[in-house]
Amino acid sequence: MKIQNDLILRAARGEQTERVPVWVMRQAGRVLAEYRATRAQAGSFKSLLKNPDLAAEVTIQPVDIFGVDAAILFSDILVIPEAMGLPYRMDEGKGPSFDNTIQSQRDLDKLSNDYILENLTYVFDAISVIKRDLNDRVPLIGFAGAPWTIFCYMVEGRGSKTFSLSRAMLSKDPELAHALLARITDATIVYLKQQIACGCNMVQLFDSWAGILNQDTYVIFALPYIRKICDAISEVPLTVFAKGAFFSMEAMSSLPCRTIGVDWHTSPAFARKAIGSDKTLQGNLDPAVLYGSDEFIVEQTHRMLEAFGPQKYIANLGHGVYPDIDHNKLKLFIQTVQAYQFNRS
Amino acid sequence: MKIQNDLILRAARGEQTERVPVWVMRQAGRVLAEYRATRAQAGSFKSLLKNPDLAAEVTIQPVDIFGVDAAILFSDILVIPEAMGLPYRMDEGKGPSFDNTIQSQRDLDKLSNDYILENLTYVFDAISVIKRDLNDRVPLIGFAGAPWTIFCYMVEGRGSKTFSLSRAMLSKDPELAHALLARITDATIVYLKQQIACGCNMVQLFDSWAGILNQDTYVIFALPYIRKICDAISEVPLTVFAKGAFFSMEAMSSLPCRTIGVDWHTSPAFARKAIGSDKTLQGNLDPAVLYGSDEFIVEQTHRMLEAFGPQKYIANLGHGVYPDIDHNKLKLFIQTVQAYQFNRS
Repeated sequence: MKIQNDLILRAARGEQTERVPVWVMRQAGRVLAEYRATRAQAGSFKSLLKNPDLAAEVTIQPVDIFGVDAAILFSDILVIPEAMGLPYRMDEGKGPSFDNTIQSQRDLDKLSNDYILENLTYVFDAISVIKRDLNDRVPLIGFAGAPWTIFCYMVEGRGSKTFSLSRAMLSKDPELAHALLARITDATIVYLKQQIACGCNMVQLFDSWAGILNQDTYVIFALPYIRKICDAISEVPLTVFAKGAFFSMEAMSSLPCRTIGVDWHTSPAFARKAIGSDKTLQGNLDPAVLYGSDEFIVEQTHRMLEAFGPQKYIANLGHGVYPDIDHNKLKLFIQTVQAYQFNRS
Repeated sequence: MKIQNDLILRAARGEQTERVPVWVMRQAGRVLAEYRATRAQAGSFKSLLKNPDLAAEVTIQPVDIFGVDAAILFSDILVIPEAMGLPYRMDEGKGPSFDNTIQSQRDLDKLSNDYILENLTYVFDAISVIKRDLNDRVPLIGFAGAPWTIFCYMVEGRGSKTFSLSRAMLSKDPELAHALLARITDATIVYLKQQIACGCNMVQLFDSWAGILNQDTYVIFALPYIRKICDAISEVPLTVFAKGAFFSMEAMSSLPCRTIGVDWHTSPAFARKAIGSDKTLQGNLDPAVLYGSDEFIVEQTHRMLEAFGPQKYIANLGHGVYPDIDHNKLKLFIQTVQAYQFNRS
């Protein structure tokens, strides 16, 4: 089946596009009254993501309302540790928390990768509903957390400013860290392959906590596992978004993936120089720009577009949209990208 | 009066040193049982910093116990907003919080810079006690928060992962943001000059939240105010530590200051290339390394020393020491630096 608007897929493959495609991290979410209504109906964040019909509904809302060039599966990166045997709670305003964490080989031995697909049926069911209702208008993006970020939550048990427990394990017990990272990597490959089998047209790895490492530790504990996932996923284009990892941008240039996400701290020129001319870049408007006036948003968006250029580029924010942003400001960002004409020979 | 061990002052001035000097951010703090005892005696963090004798005691503890090459004043960057008229609370395990924040010109009009020195007498009294008891064994480092970081707390009212309220003001009301930043800058200059008049031998600006900006916003809202402070402080060497601001390292190379702090995300080679050969660098061991074995700590410390080289360099961690680090591990780091012999012709 041919996707009607396949701009993002073509951009990800490095093919020519007539205009720059755009989607937004966390486009399905609290900025939309429609999302808030569906979530209220579900009762909680976790009930929402475990209900295939409602998860499909919020996945498609931004396509209908904003006219973005792709839908992204509504889910959560922490479904993987849960499917491995480490359940978590999501408390309103407090973020995720795990009752049990991984501190030893014995903790690790309690986990299993044997039931990943079985435990995540609700995700694959949601993808089927989305694909049916989306009706090939735009591509559907699947996703997972990168192993290092999932590791952080499994060791720390919650969000943290420093993730010092997780980083402590890298210093104290690197063998255990590698064993856990390898296990997460295997689960993630199974998970992404099934997302693709169910109809996801491209996938993204979110390394949300990349920025709490440095070049040395990222190359040892994060990149090899991302590389393994990239090697395993050849069916669709894959994007790697390592937030805060300016220090490993050059190392990431050799990853066997098509697109590299750029956070808002990293300038387009820095990213292009580090990554080289082959890959597609994605990003990177400062989400806080959307607090500004319409004129400011348009001006900053134009600036971003000129800095990245018209090809091998997917426009996005440099991180997820903040939940208190006026959805009209987000719409303005999207429309500004879609209407932009480059003056280039 | 001649400081007996003036290695850090000489390194900061760019002069030759026989060995690399070392101190540690948050060296006066919870890693030391002696600190915890003095703090218990004071009753609370704020009572401790407002008691000149006890603040002097914890300032000097790491000189006696670790043999570091400098003492750093025990205080808090948030005494400046408090002295300007915005009091804060420090709740155990929750970090700082302000009852009132700056959201409008009217809020700003309620602040005053007229009583900075009067309101901070307790700091200057502490410096006098420290200077007396330190007896010129090592230099005393004074400090303040950089204007952008202080601004974050005054607008947000507390710590935050995104500081989206503070960054929203940069987009929504840049004039108000500049007015507040200018006010903080003026207060900081008065404050640092008095620290120096009371005996501080060098001073450091901590831009702890630099990393939530990008190159564009850092150059507009952070650097000009740091530059103004550098211009005003010519009495002693000044260090600028902008955590997470790899994107403005090059811009920082032209600051009229002597030393640039390097966080643990930034490699020594990246920092030296961006800053050039003139200034002294300070940093940058990953604080999480101190969770590792003794062998690992020694090996990583040697690696850091070789990467920075023997001159124009002050060894430190790349951020404050984590409070749950075994103080023997911290001592090992310090002694490893002090014992290291470079094999260079």
